[in-house]
Amino acid sequence: MAGVITLERILALQAAYIRCIDHNELEAWPEFFLDPCLYKVTTAENHKLGYQSGIIYADTKGMLIDRVAALRQANIYEKQNYRHILGLSDIVKNDGGEAKSETPFMVVRIMHDGRSDIFATGLYLDTIRATGSDLKFVQRIVVCDSSRIDTLMALPL
Amino acid sequence: MAGVITLERILALQAAYIRCIDHNELEAWPEFFLDPCLYKVTTAENHKLGYQSGIIYADTKGMLIDRVAALRQANIYEKQNYRHILGLSDIVKNDGGEAKSETPFMVVRIMHDGRSDIFATGLYLDTIRATGSDLKFVQRIVVCDSSRIDTLMALPL
Amino acid sequence: MAGVITLERILALQAAYIRCIDHNELEAWPEFFLDPCLYKVTTAENHKLGYQSGIIYADTKGMLIDRVAALRQANIYEKQNYRHILGLSDIVKNDGGEAKSETPFMVVRIMHDGRSDIFATGLYLDTIRATGSDLKFVQRIVVCDSSRIDTLMALPL
Repeated sequence: MAGVITLERILALQAAYIRCIDHNELEAWPEFFLDPCLYKVTTAENHKLGYQSGIIYADTKGMLIDRVAALRQANIYEKQNYRHILGLSDIVKNDGGEAKSETPFMVVRIMHDGRSDIFATGLYLDTIRATGSDLKFVQRIVVCDSSRIDTLMALPL
Repeated sequence: MAGVITLERILALQAAYIRCIDHNELEAWPEFFLDPCLYKVTTAENHKLGYQSGIIYADTKGMLIDRVAALRQANIYEKQNYRHILGLSDIVKNDGGEAKSETPFMVVRIMHDGRSDIFATGLYLDTIRATGSDLKFVQRIVVCDSSRIDTLMALPL
Repeated sequence: MAGVITLERILALQAAYIRCIDHNELEAWPEFFLDPCLYKVTTAENHKLGYQSGIIYADTKGMLIDRVAALRQANIYEKQNYRHILGLSDIVKNDGGEAKSETPFMVVRIMHDGRSDIFATGLYLDTIRATGSDLKFVQRIVVCDSSRIDTLMALPL
Protein backbone atom coordinates (compact mmCIF):
# COMPACT_ATOMS: atom_id res chain seq x y z
CA MET A 1 0.00 0.00 0.00
CA ALA A 2 1.83 3.03 -1.29
CA GLY A 3 -0.48 5.68 0.11
CA VAL A 4 -1.30 8.94 -1.60
CA ILE A 5 1.02 11.80 -2.43
CA THR A 6 0.56 14.90 -0.30
CA LEU A 7 2.41 18.22 -0.13
CA GLU A 8 3.82 17.16 3.24
CA ARG A 9 5.33 14.00 1.74
CA ILE A 10 6.77 15.90 -1.23
CA LEU A 11 8.43 18.41 1.11
CA ALA A 12 9.91 15.56 3.15
CA LEU A 13 11.28 13.98 -0.05
CA GLN A 14 12.86 17.29 -1.13
CA ALA A 15 14.43 17.76 2.31
CA ALA A 16 15.84 14.22 2.33
CA TYR A 17 17.26 14.66 -1.18
CA ILE A 18 19.22 17.82 -0.40
CA ARG A 19 20.36 16.40 2.95
CA CYS A 20 21.82 13.43 1.09
CA ILE A 21 23.87 15.68 -1.20
CA ASP A 22 24.80 18.38 1.30
CA HIS A 23 25.96 15.71 3.79
CA ASN A 24 28.02 14.20 0.98
CA GLU A 25 26.26 10.82 1.23
CA LEU A 26 26.27 10.47 -2.54
CA GLU A 27 26.08 6.68 -2.54
CA ALA A 28 22.46 7.03 -1.33
CA TRP A 29 21.58 9.53 -4.04
CA PRO A 30 20.55 7.05 -6.81
CA GLU A 31 18.04 5.53 -4.36
CA PHE A 32 15.84 8.58 -4.76
CA PHE A 33 15.08 7.49 -8.34
CA LEU A 34 13.05 4.74 -9.97
CA ASP A 35 14.64 2.63 -12.68
CA PRO A 36 14.36 3.61 -15.53
CA CYS A 37 14.23 7.30 -14.66
CA LEU A 38 15.22 10.64 -16.04
CA TYR A 39 17.73 12.89 -14.32
CA LYS A 40 18.72 15.87 -16.39
CA VAL A 41 20.50 19.13 -15.64
CA THR A 42 19.82 21.83 -18.21
CA THR A 43 19.54 25.60 -18.55
CA ALA A 44 16.36 27.67 -18.67
CA GLU A 45 17.26 28.80 -22.18
CA ASN A 46 17.79 25.29 -23.55
CA HIS A 47 14.73 24.00 -21.70
CA LYS A 48 12.60 26.73 -23.28
CA LEU A 49 13.96 25.87 -26.72
CA GLY A 50 12.92 22.25 -26.13
CA TYR A 51 16.42 20.78 -26.35
CA GLN A 52 16.40 17.17 -25.19
CA SER A 53 20.04 16.89 -24.21
CA GLY A 54 21.43 18.42 -21.06
CA ILE A 55 24.64 19.21 -19.23
CA ILE A 56 24.04 15.98 -17.37
CA TYR A 57 21.73 13.27 -18.64
CA ALA A 58 20.93 9.90 -17.11
CA ASP A 59 17.98 7.62 -17.78
CA THR A 60 18.79 4.56 -15.73
CA LYS A 61 19.70 4.10 -12.10
CA GLY A 62 22.90 2.43 -13.28
CA MET A 63 23.99 5.67 -14.92
CA LEU A 64 23.43 7.52 -11.64
CA ILE A 65 25.47 4.91 -9.75
CA ASP A 66 28.26 5.18 -12.34
CA ARG A 67 28.25 8.92 -11.95
CA VAL A 68 28.77 8.69 -8.19
CA ALA A 69 31.57 6.13 -8.68
CA ALA A 70 33.28 8.46 -11.15
CA LEU A 71 33.01 11.38 -8.73
CA ARG A 72 34.54 9.32 -5.94
CA GLN A 73 37.45 8.17 -8.09
CA ALA A 74 38.05 11.37 -9.99
CA ASN A 75 40.62 13.92 -9.02
CA ILE A 76 38.43 16.70 -7.81
CA TYR A 77 41.02 19.41 -7.85
CA GLU A 78 39.35 21.48 -5.26
CA LYS A 79 37.21 19.99 -2.51
CA GLN A 80 33.81 21.56 -2.25
CA ASN A 81 30.43 21.26 -0.59
CA TYR A 82 26.96 22.40 -1.49
CA ARG A 83 24.28 23.95 0.64
CA HIS A 84 20.83 23.79 -0.94
CA ILE A 85 18.07 26.15 0.15
CA LEU A 86 14.67 25.28 -1.31
CA GLY A 87 11.47 27.20 -1.75
CA LEU A 88 8.05 25.69 -1.27
CA SER A 89 7.06 22.97 -3.74
CA ASP A 90 4.16 23.72 -6.02
CA ILE A 91 2.09 20.69 -7.01
CA VAL A 92 1.17 21.16 -10.65
CA LYS A 93 -0.70 17.83 -11.01
CA ASN A 94 -1.54 15.04 -8.59
CA ASP A 95 -3.59 11.90 -9.14
CA GLY A 96 -2.61 10.48 -5.75
CA GLY A 97 -0.17 7.87 -7.06
CA GLU A 98 1.86 10.17 -9.28
CA ALA A 99 2.42 13.91 -9.08
CA LYS A 100 4.22 16.68 -10.91
CA SER A 101 5.75 19.48 -8.88
CA GLU A 102 8.00 22.50 -9.24
CA THR A 103 10.43 23.53 -6.51
CA PRO A 104 12.68 26.61 -6.62
CA PHE A 105 16.23 26.05 -5.42
CA MET A 106 19.42 27.92 -4.68
CA VAL A 107 22.75 26.22 -4.17
CA VAL A 108 25.66 27.88 -2.40
CA ARG A 109 29.02 26.27 -3.08
CA ILE A 110 31.59 26.27 -0.28
CA MET A 111 35.16 25.75 -1.45
CA HIS A 112 37.79 24.09 0.69
CA ASP A 113 39.45 27.40 1.51
CA GLY A 114 36.17 28.75 2.84
CA ARG A 115 35.01 30.87 -0.08
CA SER A 116 31.23 30.74 -0.65
CA ASP A 117 29.36 31.71 -3.76
CA ILE A 118 25.99 31.20 -5.38
CA PHE A 119 26.66 28.19 -7.54
CA ALA A 120 23.24 27.82 -9.12
CA THR A 121 19.61 28.85 -8.86
CA GLY A 122 16.67 27.35 -10.68
CA LEU A 123 13.70 25.07 -10.60
CA TYR A 124 13.32 21.35 -10.00
CA LEU A 125 10.69 19.98 -12.39
CA ASP A 126 9.75 16.65 -10.87
CA THR A 127 7.55 13.69 -11.59
CA ILE A 128 7.12 11.75 -8.37
CA ARG A 129 5.59 8.34 -7.77
CA ALA A 130 4.46 6.63 -4.56
CA THR A 131 6.09 3.19 -4.33
CA GLY A 132 5.92 1.08 -1.20
CA SER A 133 6.19 3.48 1.71
CA ASP A 134 8.39 5.89 -0.23
CA LEU A 135 8.15 8.58 -2.83
CA LYS A 136 10.63 8.29 -5.69
CA PHE A 137 11.54 10.44 -8.66
CA VAL A 138 10.35 9.13 -12.02
CA GLN A 139 11.87 12.27 -13.47
CA ARG A 140 13.86 15.20 -12.11
CA ILE A 141 14.75 17.95 -14.56
CA VAL A 142 17.02 20.52 -12.97
CA VAL A 143 16.50 23.77 -14.86
CA CYS A 144 19.30 26.20 -14.00
CA ASP A 145 18.50 29.90 -14.41
CA SER A 146 21.94 30.79 -15.63
CA SER A 147 23.51 29.68 -18.88
CA ARG A 148 26.91 29.96 -17.23
CA ILE A 149 26.92 26.69 -15.36
CA ASP A 150 30.11 24.90 -14.49
CA THR A 151 30.18 21.90 -16.80
CA LEU A 152 32.72 20.19 -14.60
CA MET A 153 30.01 20.08 -11.95
CA ALA A 154 31.44 17.88 -9.28
CA LEU A 155 28.32 17.16 -7.26
CA PRO A 156 24.77 16.49 -8.44
CA LEU A 157 22.21 19.25 -8.04
CA MET B 1 -18.12 31.90 0.04
CA ALA B 2 -14.54 33.07 0.42
CA GLY B 3 -13.44 30.65 3.11
CA VAL B 4 -11.01 31.47 5.85
CA ILE B 5 -7.38 32.40 5.58
CA THR B 6 -4.94 29.72 6.74
CA LEU B 7 -1.14 29.49 6.74
CA GLU B 8 -1.38 26.91 3.98
CA ARG B 9 -3.36 29.30 1.75
CA ILE B 10 -0.95 32.16 2.45
CA LEU B 11 2.03 29.99 1.51
CA ALA B 12 0.29 28.97 -1.73
CA LEU B 13 -0.34 32.65 -2.53
CA GLN B 14 3.32 33.53 -1.89
CA ALA B 15 4.48 30.64 -4.08
CA ALA B 16 2.14 31.63 -6.92
CA TYR B 17 3.28 35.27 -6.71
CA ILE B 18 6.98 34.51 -7.08
CA ARG B 19 6.31 31.93 -9.79
CA CYS B 20 4.48 34.61 -11.78
CA ILE B 21 7.50 36.95 -11.63
CA ASP B 22 10.26 34.36 -11.94
CA HIS B 23 8.52 32.81 -14.97
CA ASN B 24 8.28 36.31 -16.45
CA GLU B 25 4.48 36.19 -16.69
CA LEU B 26 4.23 39.81 -15.62
CA GLU B 27 0.86 40.42 -17.27
CA ALA B 28 -0.67 38.22 -14.55
CA TRP B 29 1.07 40.09 -11.74
CA PRO B 30 -1.56 42.84 -11.16
CA GLU B 31 -4.17 40.10 -10.64
CA PHE B 32 -2.64 39.32 -7.25
CA PHE B 33 -3.91 42.68 -5.96
CA LEU B 34 -7.31 44.14 -5.07
CA ASP B 35 -8.29 47.53 -6.48
CA PRO B 36 -7.54 49.94 -4.83
CA CYS B 37 -4.44 48.44 -3.28
CA LEU B 38 -1.04 49.44 -2.05
CA TYR B 39 2.15 48.10 -3.60
CA LYS B 40 5.24 49.81 -2.32
CA VAL B 41 8.95 49.01 -2.49
CA THR B 42 10.97 50.78 0.18
CA THR B 43 14.09 50.36 2.32
CA ALA B 44 14.26 49.22 5.94
CA GLU B 45 15.73 52.59 6.88
CA ASN B 46 12.98 54.64 5.26
CA HIS B 47 10.31 52.28 6.53
CA LYS B 48 11.60 52.69 10.09
CA LEU B 49 11.57 56.47 9.71
CA GLY B 50 7.94 56.25 8.63
CA TYR B 51 8.43 57.70 5.15
CA GLN B 52 5.28 57.24 3.08
CA SER B 53 6.89 57.36 -0.33
CA GLY B 54 8.88 54.50 -1.79
CA ILE B 55 11.15 53.54 -4.63
CA ILE B 56 8.04 52.19 -6.29
CA TYR B 57 4.54 53.23 -5.27
CA ALA B 58 1.23 52.16 -6.74
CA ASP B 59 -2.21 52.38 -5.15
CA THR B 60 -4.48 51.21 -7.95
CA LYS B 61 -4.48 48.12 -10.11
CA GLY B 62 -4.28 50.43 -13.13
CA MET B 63 -0.90 51.70 -11.94
CA LEU B 64 0.37 48.12 -11.69
CA ILE B 65 -0.89 47.36 -15.20
CA ASP B 66 0.78 50.55 -16.51
CA ARG B 67 4.02 49.51 -14.85
CA VAL B 68 4.03 46.16 -16.65
CA ALA B 69 3.24 47.85 -19.96
CA ALA B 70 6.15 50.25 -19.43
CA LEU B 71 8.49 47.38 -18.63
CA ARG B 72 7.46 45.54 -21.78
CA GLN B 73 7.96 48.59 -23.99
CA ALA B 74 11.05 50.00 -22.34
CA ASN B 75 14.54 49.36 -23.51
CA ILE B 76 15.80 47.07 -20.84
CA TYR B 77 19.48 47.38 -21.61
CA GLU B 78 20.39 44.06 -20.18
CA LYS B 79 17.97 41.12 -20.06
CA GLN B 80 17.60 39.65 -16.62
CA ASN B 81 15.61 37.19 -14.55
CA TYR B 82 14.84 36.88 -10.88
CA ARG B 83 14.81 33.85 -8.65
CA HIS B 84 12.94 34.41 -5.39
CA ILE B 85 13.58 32.20 -2.39
CA LEU B 86 11.14 32.78 0.46
CA GLY B 87 11.20 31.96 4.13
CA LEU B 88 8.16 30.81 6.07
CA SER B 89 5.34 33.35 6.39
CA ASP B 90 4.56 34.56 9.88
CA ILE B 91 0.90 35.45 10.45
CA VAL B 92 0.87 38.55 12.63
CA LYS B 93 -2.92 38.94 12.70
CA ASN B 94 -5.80 36.92 11.24
CA ASP B 95 -9.53 37.40 11.63
CA GLY B 96 -10.30 34.74 9.02
CA GLY B 97 -11.32 37.11 6.24
CA GLU B 98 -8.28 39.39 6.40
CA ALA B 99 -4.76 38.69 7.65
CA LYS B 100 -1.45 40.45 8.10
CA SER B 101 1.72 38.45 7.50
CA GLU B 102 5.47 38.89 7.21
CA THR B 103 7.55 36.81 4.81
CA PRO B 104 11.35 37.00 4.45
CA PHE B 105 12.64 36.96 0.89
CA MET B 106 15.85 36.81 -1.05
CA VAL B 107 16.07 37.57 -4.76
CA VAL B 108 18.93 36.41 -6.94
CA ARG B 109 19.25 38.25 -10.23
CA ILE B 110 20.51 36.33 -13.23
CA MET B 111 21.89 38.52 -16.02
CA HIS B 112 21.74 37.53 -19.66
CA ASP B 113 25.44 36.63 -19.72
CA GLY B 114 24.88 34.22 -16.82
CA ARG B 115 26.22 36.28 -13.92
CA SER B 116 24.20 35.78 -10.70
CA ASP B 117 24.13 38.04 -7.68
CA ILE B 118 22.00 38.72 -4.64
CA PHE B 119 19.78 41.50 -5.91
CA ALA B 120 17.75 42.09 -2.77
CA THR B 121 16.80 40.64 0.61
CA GLY B 122 14.06 41.82 2.90
CA LEU B 123 10.59 41.31 4.22
CA TYR B 124 7.18 41.29 2.57
CA LEU B 125 4.69 43.06 4.87
CA ASP B 126 1.32 41.94 3.56
CA THR B 127 -2.34 42.54 4.19
CA ILE B 128 -4.25 39.72 2.55
CA ARG B 129 -7.98 39.34 2.00
CA ALA B 130 -10.06 36.29 1.05
CA THR B 131 -12.21 37.12 -1.98
CA GLY B 132 -14.17 34.50 -3.87
CA SER B 133 -12.00 31.41 -3.94
CA ASP B 134 -8.77 33.44 -3.95
CA LEU B 135 -6.55 35.35 -1.62
CA LYS B 136 -5.52 38.80 -2.83
CA PHE B 137 -3.18 41.47 -1.57
CA VAL B 138 -4.85 44.53 -0.11
CA GLN B 139 -1.36 45.77 0.61
CA ARG B 140 2.16 44.53 -0.09
CA ILE B 141 5.00 46.61 1.29
CA VAL B 142 8.35 45.28 0.12
CA VAL B 143 10.91 46.35 2.72
CA CYS B 144 14.42 45.89 1.30
CA ASP B 145 17.21 45.41 3.82
CA SER B 146 19.73 47.35 1.84
CA SER B 147 19.61 51.06 1.11
CA ARG B 148 21.53 50.38 -2.09
CA ILE B 149 18.70 49.20 -4.25
CA ASP B 150 18.75 49.59 -8.00
CA THR B 151 16.24 52.34 -8.69
CA LEU B 152 16.00 51.28 -12.31
CA MET B 153 14.54 48.05 -11.00
CA ALA B 154 13.36 46.28 -14.12
CA LEU B 155 11.11 43.66 -12.57
CA PRO B 156 8.74 43.87 -9.61
CA LEU B 157 9.83 42.30 -6.33
CA MET C 1 0.44 21.25 29.96
CA ALA C 2 3.24 21.65 27.46
CA GLY C 3 1.63 19.82 24.55
CA VAL C 4 3.53 17.75 22.06
CA ILE C 5 6.17 18.85 19.60
CA THR C 6 5.05 18.92 15.98
CA LEU C 7 6.77 20.02 12.77
CA GLU C 8 4.43 23.00 12.65
CA ARG C 9 5.53 24.16 16.12
CA ILE C 10 9.21 23.67 15.26
CA LEU C 11 8.82 25.76 12.11
CA ALA C 12 7.11 28.51 14.12
CA LEU C 13 9.99 28.45 16.64
CA GLN C 14 12.57 28.72 13.85
CA ALA C 15 10.68 31.61 12.26
CA ALA C 16 10.40 33.47 15.58
CA TYR C 17 14.11 32.97 16.28
CA ILE C 18 15.32 34.47 13.02
CA ARG C 19 12.78 37.28 13.25
CA CYS C 20 14.20 38.19 16.64
CA ILE C 21 17.73 38.49 15.24
CA ASP C 22 16.89 39.99 11.85
CA HIS C 23 14.70 42.64 13.54
CA ASN C 24 17.62 43.37 15.86
CA GLU C 25 15.61 42.57 18.99
CA LEU C 26 18.60 40.85 20.56
CA GLU C 27 17.46 41.36 24.15
CA ALA C 28 14.75 38.75 23.48
CA TRP C 29 17.22 36.25 22.01
CA PRO C 30 18.26 34.49 25.28
CA GLU C 31 14.58 33.75 25.95
CA PHE C 32 14.65 31.12 23.22
CA PHE C 33 16.91 28.96 25.42
CA LEU C 34 16.45 26.94 28.59
CA ASP C 35 18.90 27.40 31.47
CA PRO C 36 21.35 25.65 31.45
CA CYS C 37 21.57 25.30 27.69
CA LEU C 38 24.15 24.90 24.97
CA TYR C 39 24.62 27.49 22.26
CA LYS C 40 27.62 26.85 20.10
CA VAL C 41 28.81 28.17 16.74
CA THR C 42 31.32 25.90 15.04
CA THR C 43 32.51 24.83 11.59
CA ALA C 44 31.57 21.64 9.73
CA GLU C 45 35.20 20.57 9.81
CA ASN C 46 35.62 21.00 13.57
CA HIS C 47 32.21 19.46 14.22
CA LYS C 48 33.18 16.40 12.19
CA LEU C 49 36.44 16.09 14.12
CA GLY C 50 34.44 16.14 17.36
CA TYR C 51 35.99 19.31 18.77
CA GLN C 52 34.03 20.47 21.79
CA SER C 53 34.97 24.13 21.68
CA GLY C 54 33.53 26.56 19.17
CA ILE C 55 33.87 30.05 17.78
CA ILE C 56 31.15 30.97 20.23
CA TYR C 57 30.27 28.84 23.24
CA ALA C 58 27.68 29.50 25.94
CA ASP C 59 26.13 27.01 28.35
CA THR C 60 24.01 29.22 30.57
CA LYS C 61 21.36 31.79 29.79
CA GLY C 62 23.49 34.30 31.71
CA MET C 63 26.26 33.90 29.17
CA LEU C 64 23.81 34.64 26.35
CA ILE C 65 22.57 37.75 28.18
CA ASP C 66 26.17 38.88 28.73
CA ARG C 67 26.87 38.41 25.07
CA VAL C 68 24.01 40.67 24.04
CA ALA C 69 25.11 43.30 26.59
CA ALA C 70 28.64 43.20 25.17
CA LEU C 71 27.33 43.60 21.64
CA ARG C 72 25.24 46.59 22.63
CA GLN C 73 28.14 48.31 24.41
CA ALA C 74 30.90 47.39 21.99
CA ASN C 75 32.09 49.62 19.23
CA ILE C 76 30.75 47.82 16.24
CA TYR C 77 32.85 49.56 13.63
CA GLU C 78 30.43 48.96 10.85
CA LYS C 79 26.69 48.65 11.41
CA GLN C 80 25.21 45.54 9.89
CA ASN C 81 22.06 43.45 9.68
CA TYR C 82 21.37 39.84 8.95
CA ARG C 83 18.71 38.24 6.82
CA HIS C 84 18.23 34.54 7.53
CA ILE C 85 16.61 32.27 4.99
CA LEU C 86 15.84 28.80 6.33
CA GLY C 87 15.13 25.49 4.70
CA LEU C 88 12.57 23.03 6.01
CA SER C 89 13.36 21.48 9.41
CA ASP C 90 13.98 17.76 9.47
CA ILE C 91 12.90 16.05 12.69
CA VAL C 92 15.55 13.44 13.46
CA LYS C 93 13.98 12.25 16.73
CA ASN C 94 10.81 13.17 18.61
CA ASP C 95 9.37 11.69 21.77
CA GLY C 96 6.69 14.39 21.99
CA GLY C 97 8.26 16.33 24.85
CA GLU C 98 11.74 16.64 23.37
CA ALA C 99 12.90 16.56 19.78
CA LYS C 100 16.07 16.76 17.72
CA SER C 101 15.95 18.55 14.41
CA GLU C 102 18.21 19.80 11.63
CA THR C 103 17.47 23.01 9.74
CA PRO C 104 19.56 24.35 6.84
CA PHE C 105 20.20 28.09 6.93
CA MET C 106 21.72 30.85 4.88
CA VAL C 107 22.51 34.27 6.27
CA VAL C 108 22.98 37.33 4.08
CA ARG C 109 24.76 40.21 5.78
CA ILE C 110 23.76 43.73 4.81
CA MET C 111 26.38 46.36 5.65
CA HIS C 112 25.49 49.93 6.48
CA ASP C 113 26.57 51.18 3.06
CA GLY C 114 24.18 48.73 1.42
CA ARG C 115 26.58 45.98 0.36
CA SER C 116 25.12 42.46 0.73
CA ASP C 117 27.01 39.20 0.86
CA ILE C 118 26.49 35.62 1.91
CA PHE C 119 27.79 35.71 5.47
CA ALA C 120 27.24 32.07 6.37
CA THR C 121 25.50 28.88 5.36
CA GLY C 122 25.11 25.74 7.41
CA LEU C 123 22.89 23.62 9.57
CA TYR C 124 21.18 24.23 12.89
CA LEU C 125 21.44 21.07 15.01
CA ASP C 126 18.80 21.55 17.68
CA THR C 127 17.47 19.82 20.74
CA ILE C 128 14.09 21.34 21.52
CA ARG C 129 11.88 20.88 24.57
CA ALA C 130 8.22 21.73 25.13
CA THR C 131 7.90 23.85 28.28
CA GLY C 132 4.67 25.56 29.28
CA SER C 133 3.08 26.75 26.06
CA ASP C 134 6.44 27.30 24.38
CA LEU C 135 9.19 25.39 22.69
CA LYS C 136 12.71 26.23 23.88
CA PHE C 137 16.18 25.23 22.81
CA VAL C 138 17.98 22.85 25.14
CA GLN C 139 20.78 22.93 22.63
CA ARG C 140 21.49 24.78 19.39
CA ILE C 141 24.71 23.91 17.59
CA VAL C 142 25.25 26.18 14.61
CA VAL C 143 27.44 24.26 12.17
CA CYS C 144 28.81 26.66 9.55
CA ASP C 145 29.77 25.12 6.22
CA SER C 146 32.74 27.36 5.72
CA SER C 147 35.90 27.36 7.82
CA ARG C 148 36.32 31.03 6.96
CA ILE C 149 33.90 32.50 9.44
CA ASP C 150 34.30 36.00 10.78
CA THR C 151 35.41 35.51 14.39
CA LEU C 152 34.40 39.04 15.24
CA MET C 153 30.86 37.95 14.50
CA ALA C 154 28.77 40.85 15.69
CA LEU C 155 25.35 39.22 15.76
CA PRO C 156 24.33 35.72 16.83
CA LEU C 157 23.48 33.21 14.13
